[in-house]
Amino acid sequence: MTELHPRGVFCASLTPLQANLSPDHGLFAEHCHHLLAEGCDGIALLGTTGEANSFSTGERKALLEAAVRAGIAQSRLLPGTGVAALTDTVELTRHALSLGVETVVMLPPFYYKDVTEDGLFAAYAAVVERVADPRLKVVLYHIPQVSAVPIAFPLIERLRAAFPGVFTGIKDSAGVLANMEALVERFPGFSVLAGADPLMLPLLRKGGAGCITATSNLMAKDLAFIYRHFADAGRAADVEAAQARVVAERDRTAGPVQIAMIKALTAVRTGNDGWLRMRPPLVRLSAEQAAALRAA
Amino acid sequence: MTELHPRGVFCASLTPLQANLSPDHGLFAEHCHHLLAEGCDGIALLGTTGEANSFSTGERKALLEAAVRAGIAQSRLLPGTGVAALTDTVELTRHALSLGVETVVMLPPFYYKDVTEDGLFAAYAAVVERVADPRLKVVLYHIPQVSAVPIAFPLIERLRAAFPGVFTGIKDSAGVLANMEALVERFPGFSVLAGADPLMLPLLRKGGAGCITATSNLMAKDLAFIYRHFADAGRAADVEAAQARVVAERDRTAGPVQIAMIKALTAVRTGNDGWLRMRPPLVRLSAEQAAALRAA
Repeated sequence: MTELHPRGVFCASLTPLQANLSPDHGLFAEHCHHLLAEGCDGIALLGTTGEANSFSTGERKALLEAAVRAGIAQSRLLPGTGVAALTDTVELTRHALSLGVETVVMLPPFYYKDVTEDGLFAAYAAVVERVADPRLKVVLYHIPQVSAVPIAFPLIERLRAAFPGVFTGIKDSAGVLANMEALVERFPGFSVLAGADPLMLPLLRKGGAGCITATSNLMAKDLAFIYRHFADAGRAADVEAAQARVVAERDRTAGPVQIAMIKALTAVRTGNDGWLRMRPPLVRLSAEQAAALRAA
Repeated sequence: MTELHPRGVFCASLTPLQANLSPDHGLFAEHCHHLLAEGCDGIALLGTTGEANSFSTGERKALLEAAVRAGIAQSRLLPGTGVAALTDTVELTRHALSLGVETVVMLPPFYYKDVTEDGLFAAYAAVVERVADPRLKVVLYHIPQVSAVPIAFPLIERLRAAFPGVFTGIKDSAGVLANMEALVERFPGFSVLAGADPLMLPLLRKGGAGCITATSNLMAKDLAFIYRHFADAGRAADVEAAQARVVAERDRTAGPVQIAMIKALTAVRTGNDGWLRMRPPLVRLSAEQAAALRAA
């Protein structure tokens, strides 16, 4: 059986912003080092939690370059490169490879809805063919509640058949464990990563590969512990305790202002209020929400 | 009462593609001249029908430049400039103004769903403030079935109050006449443009400003006739006949493959099969669909 790739705990990292709402490269590098020190296997930057689609292609490239420049190993970086425009997805993916970053997380083109399987296949195929780099490995990104463009099983089947070795995994953020388990069963050797922190543990027990999650910005240590020891009977109690903390933190932060809340908690942890900034259309917590969070 | 701006029949024009799926500037300019000759008041390029969000910022700029270079008056061009990333929306809007194109159609940022009114207000406000050009006039773009980010009345109210003279109109593509009528009633002096061809006539009768539509790629002459003569009792029968043709053409082309179908009919009209090309995730008609269209 093929080794699953990628596997481990990947943080869907926040993107800190400067006062002008541009990405703060220095603070981002600090955050990446912190996450790796906590035990993350890598950084899935420029995803939904990272507000990636609120940044231009140039801003996205610069952030990835900053991470590489800060000494984060390329093999630990999983940037999001899938956007609405085919040519931009190609440009971002080529750029990642040019830096030695070989695995990317790729949303489907997300402007048009109810597109056909043929259309989604054509979109992903065009990216692979235009990038034309044998190093490329793609993690598909299924987050229908945000993208409104689901990644269905027949599409995965076609892509894996047409491009062996390229489509190595999926981040499943729909929050339905049964779907992740079905993916593991249907596609042996395919890396299924939970997009919701509480589901990593049950998914690992079924042969899943790990997670790419938002709460790992706050709970990386516990998630890393669970990942390393979930099969270790002697650590069962500690694993369950860590899982309980992860579930509690996820419950506390889940909801429509999740990203603002995780940023607010990171501001508290670091003592740096710069972390509170959000790029529209997302906004920081209201005074009321912030007070409720401090009280909790 | 303020003069409505923009007003008239605007074609949500198709974007013809070269073999490499880049926009075909020459064919696009030809199409624009054809639409104006048929009686369109202007060209709403780079919208949903124009596959705009499948093109990069650079490709979008180049297409608008090509239209200006081809001699289309700037006052007749209504480019779409609203994308997911704030900084790209600012860049595209500034670029339009730099060419003397002062009125743009602006989608809300469309990646995140269920964003707050505060967030959407902040996004539009940031664009206006960063563009910082008193010439700017924005047509809001309400197409919730595609963008999944509706433009609600309280948002329009806040934007018009905060930026007098900037938010001059809305393209309402939700297809609900009652919503367009309510917009006309609630916002005097606000230009309400139907996004669905059959609804332009009833909307004009209630004080609407015209349309920005897909079928006008095929039926510009009839739409222009309706627009000019809807209030002319002596032409009532001709207006009704034109309306019946518009409704029939719209019914024939409506549905999930609308853009491919309008391109296919344009290929027939011009004898140029280049028109059949679509950029993924949209795809051209299947052989079956094309045969059905030829038979009809």
